[in-house]
Amino acid sequence: MNTNVKKKDFPPGNARRYLEPGPVVLVSSQSKGETDIMTLGWHTILAFSPSLVGCMISAGNHSHQLIRKSGECVINIPTTELTDKVVGIGNTSGAEIDKFSEFELTKEPAQQVSAPAIKECYANFECRLYDDTLVDGYSFFIFEIVAARVMTEPEYPTTLHYTGDGKFMVSGEMVDRSELFLKEML
Amino acid sequence: MNTNVKKKDFPPGNARRYLEPGPVVLVSSQSKGETDIMTLGWHTILAFSPSLVGCMISAGNHSHQLIRKSGECVINIPTTELTDKVVGIGNTSGAEIDKFSEFELTKEPAQQVSAPAIKECYANFECRLYDDTLVDGYSFFIFEIVAARVMTEPEYPTTLHYTGDGKFMVSGEMVDRSELFLKEML
Repeated sequence: MNTNVKKKDFPPGNARRYLEPGPVVLVSSQSKGETDIMTLGWHTILAFSPSLVGCMISAGNHSHQLIRKSGECVINIPTTELTDKVVGIGNTSGAEIDKFSEFELTKEPAQQVSAPAIKECYANFECRLYDDTLVDGYSFFIFEIVAARVMTEPEYPTTLHYTGDGKFMVSGEMVDRSELFLKEML
Repeated sequence: MNTNVKKKDFPPGNARRYLEPGPVVLVSSQSKGETDIMTLGWHTILAFSPSLVGCMISAGNHSHQLIRKSGECVINIPTTELTDKVVGIGNTSGAEIDKFSEFELTKEPAQQVSAPAIKECYANFECRLYDDTLVDGYSFFIFEIVAARVMTEPEYPTTLHYTGDGKFMVSGEMVDRSELFLKEML
């Protein structure tokens, strides 16, 4: 994939197209001028309208504090070209290094939030904290996706899906069963 | 995959190996003798110990009521051989048909819960309701995985990952980056 491909605006309510398959994502955040990036595999779509996504962001992550303070983040979808950066970002702490600089990733201004998006990622979902009920108990943040941008090609990104043990499953072929679906289920 | 392969007990705390990649799952449930199955793509691992998984099970699903009443379910992982059954189960309602019978799936007794597991699935995670704080607001159930069984082969299942629009991404090659991980991150 060419990480310089142009991006286009994407309807936030359709975020499931890229998040529901369960890829590892990079979460970028900012508070008081400090930025961070973390690797995250524990997330799920929760609703279409408003477009809600739930993320378990452990309190041990430096990003947890930035996101609590700012109430914002960007969920970025990396493709396999970024595999080693994904691992490196997961191995390190933003309390000690500047991850954008260390991993040579480019801050791209977001449209609706102050946190920077990651230019090299296939898609960027801008998130605002919507419900923090389970943050104290489970570090589970419910965000509303308020804006999204997605690369114009390829049609589907080649994503990483973490299985533990340092091993990722990579997205493979697409299977189209749309003819079997009830229309109201599409 | 041979769906008659034997299963072995699996540590519930390692469920992330199969659930974190984000596959479509089949959720089986039972209340007062009535059983149901639903197709689910909206789930996330939340903790290792206890082994917690969060699932958004819409109130529009017949299974929602069975799971609320019984406080139990089994999360089953189907592989691509079951693609058309996965779609069919998503298209229909347990209020109208018996899904085990209609889709010719076999009830397998679970170890820790009354809900039946699905024999033809690669893995079965037996779940007990752990926290219902967000059930009324978001239909988001937090379950503890109390027992698990997994087929002895293949090492990784070929799973379906839903993108919307009737299209699934299929799990592809495995990429091993364990040498790059910090030991404490494995």
